[in-house]
Amino acid sequence: MKIKNKSPKELEEISQKIRDRIIDVVSRKGGHFSSTLGAVELTVGMHYVFDSSKDPFIFDVSHQCYPHKLITGRWEEFETIRQFNGLSGFTKPKESDADYFVAGHSSTSLSLAVGAAKAIKLKKEDRVPVVMIGDGSMTAGMVYEALNEIGDLKLPMVIILNDNEMSIAKPIGAISKYLSKLLAGKYYQGFKTKVDKFIKNNMPEGTTYIAKRMEEAMKLITPGILFEEMGVDYIGPIDGHDIKEVIETLEIAKAMKKPVIVHAHTVKGKGYKIAEGQHECWHGVGPFNVEDGAFVKKEAPKSATAVFADALLDLASKHENVVGVTAAMPSGTGIDKLMKEFPERFWDVAIAEQHAITSMAAMAKEGFKPFITIYSTFLQRGFDQIIHDVCLMSMPVVFAIDRAGIVGNDGETHQGAFDISFLRFIPNMILFAPRCNETLKLALEFAYTLKSPSAIRYPRGAFKEVCAPASPFELGKAELLKEGTSNKLFIAYGAGVGRACETEKLHSEDIAILDLRFVKPLDKDTLKELAKKYDDWYIFSDSQKQGGVGSAILEFLNEEKVCVNLTSFEYEDDFIPHGDTKVVEESLGLLPAQLADRVK
Amino acid sequence: MKIKNKSPKELEEISQKIRDRIIDVVSRKGGHFSSTLGAVELTVGMHYVFDSSKDPFIFDVSHQCYPHKLITGRWEEFETIRQFNGLSGFTKPKESDADYFVAGHSSTSLSLAVGAAKAIKLKKEDRVPVVMIGDGSMTAGMVYEALNEIGDLKLPMVIILNDNEMSIAKPIGAISKYLSKLLAGKYYQGFKTKVDKFIKNNMPEGTTYIAKRMEEAMKLITPGILFEEMGVDYIGPIDGHDIKEVIETLEIAKAMKKPVIVHAHTVKGKGYKIAEGQHECWHGVGPFNVEDGAFVKKEAPKSATAVFADALLDLASKHENVVGVTAAMPSGTGIDKLMKEFPERFWDVAIAEQHAITSMAAMAKEGFKPFITIYSTFLQRGFDQIIHDVCLMSMPVVFAIDRAGIVGNDGETHQGAFDISFLRFIPNMILFAPRCNETLKLALEFAYTLKSPSAIRYPRGAFKEVCAPASPFELGKAELLKEGTSNKLFIAYGAGVGRACETEKLHSEDIAILDLRFVKPLDKDTLKELAKKYDDWYIFSDSQKQGGVGSAILEFLNEEKVCVNLTSFEYEDDFIPHGDTKVVEESLGLLPAQLADRVK
Repeated sequence: MKIKNKSPKELEEISQKIRDRIIDVVSRKGGHFSSTLGAVELTVGMHYVFDSSKDPFIFDVSHQCYPHKLITGRWEEFETIRQFNGLSGFTKPKESDADYFVAGHSSTSLSLAVGAAKAIKLKKEDRVPVVMIGDGSMTAGMVYEALNEIGDLKLPMVIILNDNEMSIAKPIGAISKYLSKLLAGKYYQGFKTKVDKFIKNNMPEGTTYIAKRMEEAMKLITPGILFEEMGVDYIGPIDGHDIKEVIETLEIAKAMKKPVIVHAHTVKGKGYKIAEGQHECWHGVGPFNVEDGAFVKKEAPKSATAVFADALLDLASKHENVVGVTAAMPSGTGIDKLMKEFPERFWDVAIAEQHAITSMAAMAKEGFKPFITIYSTFLQRGFDQIIHDVCLMSMPVVFAIDRAGIVGNDGETHQGAFDISFLRFIPNMILFAPRCNETLKLALEFAYTLKSPSAIRYPRGAFKEVCAPASPFELGKAELLKEGTSNKLFIAYGAGVGRACETEKLHSEDIAILDLRFVKPLDKDTLKELAKKYDDWYIFSDSQKQGGVGSAILEFLNEEKVCVNLTSFEYEDDFIPHGDTKVVEESLGLLPAQLADRVK
Repeated sequence: MKIKNKSPKELEEISQKIRDRIIDVVSRKGGHFSSTLGAVELTVGMHYVFDSSKDPFIFDVSHQCYPHKLITGRWEEFETIRQFNGLSGFTKPKESDADYFVAGHSSTSLSLAVGAAKAIKLKKEDRVPVVMIGDGSMTAGMVYEALNEIGDLKLPMVIILNDNEMSIAKPIGAISKYLSKLLAGKYYQGFKTKVDKFIKNNMPEGTTYIAKRMEEAMKLITPGILFEEMGVDYIGPIDGHDIKEVIETLEIAKAMKKPVIVHAHTVKGKGYKIAEGQHECWHGVGPFNVEDGAFVKKEAPKSATAVFADALLDLASKHENVVGVTAAMPSGTGIDKLMKEFPERFWDVAIAEQHAITSMAAMAKEGFKPFITIYSTFLQRGFDQIIHDVCLMSMPVVFAIDRAGIVGNDGETHQGAFDISFLRFIPNMILFAPRCNETLKLALEFAYTLKSPSAIRYPRGAFKEVCAPASPFELGKAELLKEGTSNKLFIAYGAGVGRACETEKLHSEDIAILDLRFVKPLDKDTLKELAKKYDDWYIFSDSQKQGGVGSAILEFLNEEKVCVNLTSFEYEDDFIPHGDTKVVEESLGLLPAQLADRVK
């Protein structure tokens, strides 16, 4: 789509076309919605002033990249967004050269821009990295680490701060308050003008020194001082929906050949009245009716997240020392309920996983029982803190890991594949998992009693049905759900139990099923006992094979010199693509019917 | 040691006594030196104003905690610092109730203070968290994530910013420049006073509005505006060696019942003239002569770090696209050499592992070959970035992992035990390791040719001698170093090869030794072949057993239905304590003589 050399009026028309296409497709297919609508004019401006075939276009998180996809040759294909084998919901270089980098996790953009800027300098090329980052992404530590180098080396880049005064949820923290103050920026600008005039006209004679100093002072109180103090120029705030203002400002910023933050005020959901300025519920959506904004209702069983939230609410009502935290995912993790009920004990600390974990470690030391509710993929951000701040002192923190396993349309950046592999080798950690709604409740009650760090995991959406009634957890105890008549044993963990039960039903033989319950510590006695009766084992767990559940069992088998045949149905050594979960699972041969076939 | 109610003069004498003790013990035993000397008066001040039996005393990194240890009942035991079964070089609650938390990694203190402050508020207790954090720790993202919540919730705490204008190495980045500007703070203070007076005395009539605005402006240009804008009060700079000034300021800060940063200027190495104001070389030291500061010379073979640095220098001289980064460990990783030789291509980005990794991912995309030189334990901080920014797009970044395995006196926070376990399951990652100085050079040359992400690892100190000449690397190819006459096979990885060779020599049988070279991808053909001849396998690798090298081989054995007896000599499921490496290894039964015994 041609953007260069168009008139502002034409660009407005193009923006409207883009918006219509997004509303049309997302209302039918679902996807990230309000942030991408809010970024239309800014993206058009980027393509007017910069050149994505040359300049690195870096979208933070990149859920706002739909306008960019539409501009860069993916208008028709856009119909396939987030579907299996279709366009990704995020930027993806494999999809188009116009996409500089994969993104899906927050706050990586400035670091990428630093790398690009260093490369450009070394190669002596005439290119400029241009970043689009939302205000919600400004809280993560990575941004600050990058700014620290940007402000020092003065690497030329243009950083568009797309400020819709909200992250996915409500904006949190001092930085967000600071940005809001800037948006109300007329005061500063007006004041500066007034004082400038005053200095010129009214200063008594002989005060030149003070006048000069005053000028310096005035420089300091221009908006954006926080950034300026860090060595990064600031322009703004501007109206991010005024295409003329956007282009003029980006031209200036580009010409400055320094790091510049362009602070643009935008409205989330802009152009679709019902979503405009709304928080979380229009961020990522399923299909909806364009006329009235009503979401297409799907019959869906209660999600594990909802079950978790209810159970934690119960627990928190019973025990005053239960506290909890989310890193910017209050409704995604169900913690919003608890924040409302117990605002003194449950916090959203913004996108700040490292801080979330370490601050809760200290609360555990003080006698509280913290629940860190977090998506599997985002827990990766706090890995060192789990080891160094939680497990080293064996603090009784509970990691409640949501979105474990395949997450569907968000795809490879969001899959919850790795948590077992990266938690299992950490000393003092207890790893267990519920298999159904009822055991999820029991898991929380059990976690509450533990004096060590622990982690439970549960899937996106609902648990599959399980072939056994719930029973309480006992440390390191597995549960045999059914005996079998063949030599086969299904060993299942977490949501894998439902999959194992379904698979067993579809298989011709009568197969024993063990709910492992604890991948650490393992129930060695039960496993040894079962090895005497069954010598053909199959592992069902929604996790990476390398270092995963099967690996834990292999380590045990080897140590105890127990000999069985073991097959793991965990994920192979590859990143898992996006698409409807069932379709993705089918592509991996993980549907129960396929698994029943694979069990020889 | 009593500090409360002492006169300033008595406190100065106490400070001198503490300093003498530190110089005496560290000169004989080694340890963290200059930062701890610089923190004496600040620590005495903390104990005067606060109460460590009640108030959480939180030392960031905690290498500066020696004065605190001496004050809190560890005067005699101090003789055992950093020795096996002796005092830890860091704070450690198991050692004393006066130690609030374990620390060893940077920049966790503010998050811990947030947790403590939230707990104190909930428990309605009269306690105040007091933090000591160095300017070097101010660059990591965690600090910013914590400040974002501190400035928002206004949780009362006192943060002593112990600014010696250097981290371990030279200070880096915009934040450091900003702090230096504050230290030259008289200008601002003077200016404020002048303008205040000017406003009162010289304002023409009718300018009340402007005068008021001017006052607001003046507030803005007080020093520390960056912190104030984030909602945290700032006092300073003060002289951190003037005990009276320190105490007065801390009293004020405590009384404010808000989050306050007290910015104290100190001199690293204060009180030991030869070390005063010196960079890296006096940060952590071995024994030295107090008279002339000469280090006690030990005959030591060339360290792996030094070999690495020389080899990388060679490579960088040959190939213009070789670039590299360190996160605040230029001399620790040997990168200082390259920063001097190629200042345009090698960077110290300060304590900012996340940013270091992601920025290098972008450089790889631009055609450069980045070497990320980092300690195993600190690589944990960039875990998500390895997955999301490097491996997902399979960027050909090289992780050069120093301090892999047991690191000695720094102990449990610094052991390089986990890297294989947390890298092995990441798709696209290639893991290999050199066994000696010569193969380390070859490893770098090989890494240079790879089109995928890769990681090599090497130990602190020198490689043990190896029983075979070096040979170049070939992707996924192991190397049989010697055949044996028994059914035993030693499979060794990295520094484990030297250990295996020594063990073999001490054992009565003639045992085959395989240098695995690649833990990912494994050399399956060779392993299958060897299984035919040898069926009793022993794993030698300086890494965690869970998810480690043995685990990788078990996964392969299971997949290929190969049956051998396998014993892994990797680390068991526990944190490894501090002490001389050999002593620690002995306690774990890992000395070659012990291993020879363990091989039945």
